[in-house]
Amino acid sequence: METKKTPTRIEGLDEILGGGFPAGHVVLVSGLPGTMKSTLTYAVLHNNAVHRHTKSVYVTLEQSRTSLLAQMGTMGFDTEGVRGDLHVLDVGAIQKGIGKSATKPWIEFLHRSLTTAKEIDGVDLVVIDSLEALEVLARFEDRRTDLFQLFEWLRDLGATTLVLTEASPEASFFGLEAPPPRKDETFLADGIVELKMHPITDVEVQRRIRVVKMRGSNHKTGFYALVFEDGRFQVTSVISL
Amino acid sequence: METKKTPTRIEGLDEILGGGFPAGHVVLVSGLPGTMKSTLTYAVLHNNAVHRHTKSVYVTLEQSRTSLLAQMGTMGFDTEGVRGDLHVLDVGAIQKGIGKSATKPWIEFLHRSLTTAKEIDGVDLVVIDSLEALEVLARFEDRRTDLFQLFEWLRDLGATTLVLTEASPEASFFGLEAPPPRKDETFLADGIVELKMHPITDVEVQRRIRVVKMRGSNHKTGFYALVFEDGRFQVTSVISL
Amino acid sequence: METKKTPTRIEGLDEILGGGFPAGHVVLVSGLPGTMKSTLTYAVLHNNAVHRHTKSVYVTLEQSRTSLLAQMGTMGFDTEGVRGDLHVLDVGAIQKGIGKSATKPWIEFLHRSLTTAKEIDGVDLVVIDSLEALEVLARFEDRRTDLFQLFEWLRDLGATTLVLTEASPEASFFGLEAPPPRKDETFLADGIVELKMHPITDVEVQRRIRVVKMRGSNHKTGFYALVFEDGRFQVTSVISL
Amino acid sequence: METKKTPTRIEGLDEILGGGFPAGHVVLVSGLPGTMKSTLTYAVLHNNAVHRHTKSVYVTLEQSRTSLLAQMGTMGFDTEGVRGDLHVLDVGAIQKGIGKSATKPWIEFLHRSLTTAKEIDGVDLVVIDSLEALEVLARFEDRRTDLFQLFEWLRDLGATTLVLTEASPEASFFGLEAPPPRKDETFLADGIVELKMHPITDVEVQRRIRVVKMRGSNHKTGFYALVFEDGRFQVTSVISL
Amino acid sequence: METKKTPTRIEGLDEILGGGFPAGHVVLVSGLPGTMKSTLTYAVLHNNAVHRHTKSVYVTLEQSRTSLLAQMGTMGFDTEGVRGDLHVLDVGAIQKGIGKSATKPWIEFLHRSLTTAKEIDGVDLVVIDSLEALEVLARFEDRRTDLFQLFEWLRDLGATTLVLTEASPEASFFGLEAPPPRKDETFLADGIVELKMHPITDVEVQRRIRVVKMRGSNHKTGFYALVFEDGRFQVTSVISL
Amino acid sequence: METKKTPTRIEGLDEILGGGFPAGHVVLVSGLPGTMKSTLTYAVLHNNAVHRHTKSVYVTLEQSRTSLLAQMGTMGFDTEGVRGDLHVLDVGAIQKGIGKSATKPWIEFLHRSLTTAKEIDGVDLVVIDSLEALEVLARFEDRRTDLFQLFEWLRDLGATTLVLTEASPEASFFGLEAPPPRKDETFLADGIVELKMHPITDVEVQRRIRVVKMRGSNHKTGFYALVFEDGRFQVTSVISL
Repeated sequence: METKKTPTRIEGLDEILGGGFPAGHVVLVSGLPGTMKSTLTYAVLHNNAVHRHTKSVYVTLEQSRTSLLAQMGTMGFDTEGVRGDLHVLDVGAIQKGIGKSATKPWIEFLHRSLTTAKEIDGVDLVVIDSLEALEVLARFEDRRTDLFQLFEWLRDLGATTLVLTEASPEASFFGLEAPPPRKDETFLADGIVELKMHPITDVEVQRRIRVVKMRGSNHKTGFYALVFEDGRFQVTSVISL
Repeated sequence: METKKTPTRIEGLDEILGGGFPAGHVVLVSGLPGTMKSTLTYAVLHNNAVHRHTKSVYVTLEQSRTSLLAQMGTMGFDTEGVRGDLHVLDVGAIQKGIGKSATKPWIEFLHRSLTTAKEIDGVDLVVIDSLEALEVLARFEDRRTDLFQLFEWLRDLGATTLVLTEASPEASFFGLEAPPPRKDETFLADGIVELKMHPITDVEVQRRIRVVKMRGSNHKTGFYALVFEDGRFQVTSVISL
Repeated sequence: METKKTPTRIEGLDEILGGGFPAGHVVLVSGLPGTMKSTLTYAVLHNNAVHRHTKSVYVTLEQSRTSLLAQMGTMGFDTEGVRGDLHVLDVGAIQKGIGKSATKPWIEFLHRSLTTAKEIDGVDLVVIDSLEALEVLARFEDRRTDLFQLFEWLRDLGATTLVLTEASPEASFFGLEAPPPRKDETFLADGIVELKMHPITDVEVQRRIRVVKMRGSNHKTGFYALVFEDGRFQVTSVISL
Repeated sequence: METKKTPTRIEGLDEILGGGFPAGHVVLVSGLPGTMKSTLTYAVLHNNAVHRHTKSVYVTLEQSRTSLLAQMGTMGFDTEGVRGDLHVLDVGAIQKGIGKSATKPWIEFLHRSLTTAKEIDGVDLVVIDSLEALEVLARFEDRRTDLFQLFEWLRDLGATTLVLTEASPEASFFGLEAPPPRKDETFLADGIVELKMHPITDVEVQRRIRVVKMRGSNHKTGFYALVFEDGRFQVTSVISL
Repeated sequence: METKKTPTRIEGLDEILGGGFPAGHVVLVSGLPGTMKSTLTYAVLHNNAVHRHTKSVYVTLEQSRTSLLAQMGTMGFDTEGVRGDLHVLDVGAIQKGIGKSATKPWIEFLHRSLTTAKEIDGVDLVVIDSLEALEVLARFEDRRTDLFQLFEWLRDLGATTLVLTEASPEASFFGLEAPPPRKDETFLADGIVELKMHPITDVEVQRRIRVVKMRGSNHKTGFYALVFEDGRFQVTSVISL
Repeated sequence: METKKTPTRIEGLDEILGGGFPAGHVVLVSGLPGTMKSTLTYAVLHNNAVHRHTKSVYVTLEQSRTSLLAQMGTMGFDTEGVRGDLHVLDVGAIQKGIGKSATKPWIEFLHRSLTTAKEIDGVDLVVIDSLEALEVLARFEDRRTDLFQLFEWLRDLGATTLVLTEASPEASFFGLEAPPPRKDETFLADGIVELKMHPITDVEVQRRIRVVKMRGSNHKTGFYALVFEDGRFQVTSVISL
């Protein structure tokens, strides 16, 4: 019996994942600033929109919709061409709509927006950029319980969800890595993909990717190079130092 | 005088454990996300169900019963075939049954469920996946005392219990290891088995297993490779680097 | 589609940035004491004033306007010559103007000053020196939320803003680096430029610069030498050790 | 003038201790889970019971009397044969006897039990397994002061007391060592014996023992191998790596 | 345009500083116990008194005036000979004069004393030994704000001020260094000079000095040896290990 | 001008100290458990009693007078022979005399005892064993201020005082060292002597001593071996590894 997989359509990544993300999973994509979390996950949505017209929602919490689309345009993506399938949800806009004092309503509004989108169009892929910004906006009172409930309703949504975070799933090991792990999200998530800048020398760094955990998948466990050139990502083997 | 042992029936592991887990012990299985804690302990229950029709309960707190069974199916286990002996207890379902506000009742309900199962069918093996999720759900007020009581009634249950946790029993030593130990569970447990991803190079990692502590057992003390291929685990020696 | 860029006109730096800072971005410039954060960012404003009469405001929070101008004069900049375009805003003076008890009013006054400057002259570049001093003066009550709002209005201002900070975006890696990162500003910022003193031997250190993150830019990711001689900065490759 | 010594009768250990534990001392035996603290200290009591009919009490706080005796039986000790001299005090049993709400009374009961045993039979050796469990049960309010009083009355008892603890007296040094020291017990104790698992390679570990501190003794200061085979401990030199 | 400099008249140090301390700056002199912070800064005052009759005040907060003068006499300084120019302010004496309950008055008294001295004699150099002792005596309520105000009035005083502190401006790097930095004083200070004991081998250590930061100065950035012989300091190059 | 020195009369140590401890100084003697702080400082008092009939008080806070004297007897000191000059003050006895509830009175009683001893016999040397025990007994409310006052009255006492502590004046560097420094006592003390166990290999350790800080002394700065044989200490050079 095989779980249905949502392919990333990133060259080399689906093979490492064991076919893609298991459909319906909530997956953390973790990495320090500058590891291209936003661009990589946007690329997954973009690729699926181009190839299959997969419906998706990119929830942008750190910057405006305009800014995100401009950024992705600069990186070489045809944001206009996928407009019908890849929906960018601007949370700042939501927030203005429902008033600043709205706390609980905010997360409920997000919930309702995603559920409605799901019901009308069908939504197969969701990106939440980022968990840190979500915490600021939703003003978690009891982080652990609030996270638990968030992950629960993301899972209930039925879409495959990628949650971006700067926290690392592991203690620091090879150089330019992320701060100590925050356990709550790592055990709540169905999968974890780690992005990092690996120091090749004291001046050169290399983007790397590793599938840390993926429930129900026979994924690879090592580190791979993540290359971005001419608007396209590629995941390749690296020769060990 | 020899304590009765519950074999894992994982190739190579029982020899390291000194014959298996001492019957009735509460054993921590610790490791970071992605170290296959769930799959390994499910395999122990599955193997015992297949070979001896040993009755067991897998308490799943991080994902639903359906999701866990799908995951194990994907990993190559015949979950249907052991249905009569290996019972998966879905805590989400429990929780909905007894209401959200129920705090103490929740852990009492779990207690009652396990005790009842024990009385009717006999339960020889229990997995609790995971201690972290249990803390969220049971809302420990005084962690140390609540843990003490939990371990007491798990021990009173009479079954051999495997408690999954992301915390490590040791300070970080070889690379990709777990966060600092939390002493309470390590001294309360009768045994500790540690799983880790050991970095062979800066790109390759290897799954490893070590029996840290096992009361009343003449267990091996070193690290061994944990290999998972074609739906089967194997524990083997590793050549030191 | 390319985002408009604000060049630094520092030799070698614009190439690494992929053409300059994306216009309108809020960029952290981080580094320990002595890494020349103030001088480097003043140079960016100075260069743009000299070459293009770009209007800019340097908000000095750690020292007085007189002291900053004297410092920059000593470093070789013709501060008088750019007076019409590069405005140094002395926050001590502001503070005396609006009274010591003024807390909220302070940040509102700063906001108003910058907005007014923007409306009258047009302001294309802003330096805030430093985030740490800003925190002391503005007496943040809820750091995370206050930072979020600060970054929001800096972004609304429309100018490219450089925010100086001693915090590092990364865990310590090569020797003389900055303290552990403070996540809030790193995920709120559109870009991060890191300055550091790299120990070549146990007695020699070298100034280095790295573009850690720059939304919407195809920037270089490695470390470069930052040389300051005869009043001019230069960014060059370094031979790895 | 020589202090009277209580020999351990463990091969090789008394020589390192400078003849044994000074009589009447309170000695910490520290080590991470799996370092055989319980078995080693039980062996000291057992050896003294066999050779000299020395009266001793092993206070078991982490597991029941039955479980401890089963464990020691499995390890090869003739627990029945020393029954008349080596008394295992089951604290769970005490606790049930005096009720759950009893807090202070618990430690007073323990005090009274030990004092009575001392008065009737004479008690020359006491093991408290472990300090961590003692803290849970006795619910220390002011840890430092409560510890101070505990060590005072242990010293007043007149017996040589071994207190088991997972805390290390030293900062982590060679790999698989214990968490940071907790100063209170280390300065209150008259002696400290450290047990650890020393990593020989990245897969092999070796049990080691070191006498950290022993007031009034000319003890050895280095690390020694601690070997357990065929139910007997042996302390031997190790060839340095 | 060059800022006026206050030379240290320590052999080799002024060259590294780029001519001395910029006049009017507040400079941290940081280093662990035993790095000769007091003696070095006393030497700066002493040298300037001898060569130029520069008026200076050494505020001693950790020991009495008598004790400090005795210490400096032992180190080879002619404390009597510079009495007219180098004034040692004994804070213990101040404190007794204004009563123990005086908190705010204390720092105001210090302020007044220094201001008065400045007005009557002119004071060009001030040493405050140390920031840590100052914190104990002045009982800072809001450390960050109180420090900010302290540095403000030190700067208003117009003298060049050296503030001694045990805190390091950098994360630990080469062995025997200071504890993690406390950011507030490092960004408030106009300059930072670091003293340390550098381990040459596991038994030998060497005194070293580094100018970490000096606003408005083209200072050297590396480490230099600090030698004290026959009552004279000398700063020299070190051959890298 | 030379400060009067109190020699230790430990072979090799006075030379390193630059003649001994400056008379009247308060000196920290720091080291982890097992570094022989008590025995070394007792030896200083004992040597001075034997050679010069120097009056001294050893304040024992961690163990009883009887126990300390027994310990020193075992180590080879003729405790009876120096009875008239070396007074051991048993704080447990004091405490019983003034009642358990006495908090402030306790430290006042100690103060009065030492002052009285000083006035009657003259006291030239005091050992306080240890600072940690003192904190438990005196129940410091505001540690920093209470320490400040303690060091003030110790200095007022006029005797040379050695205060034993487990805290290290430095960050961990070579292996088996002490926990992070606690700054308050290090800057309040006039001198610091550090004792440590240095790991020669992974099994052998060597006692070492270093004079970290000694106001008014031209002391050596490196590490030396501290050997204890046949009841005598010796401080010698070590060949670096």
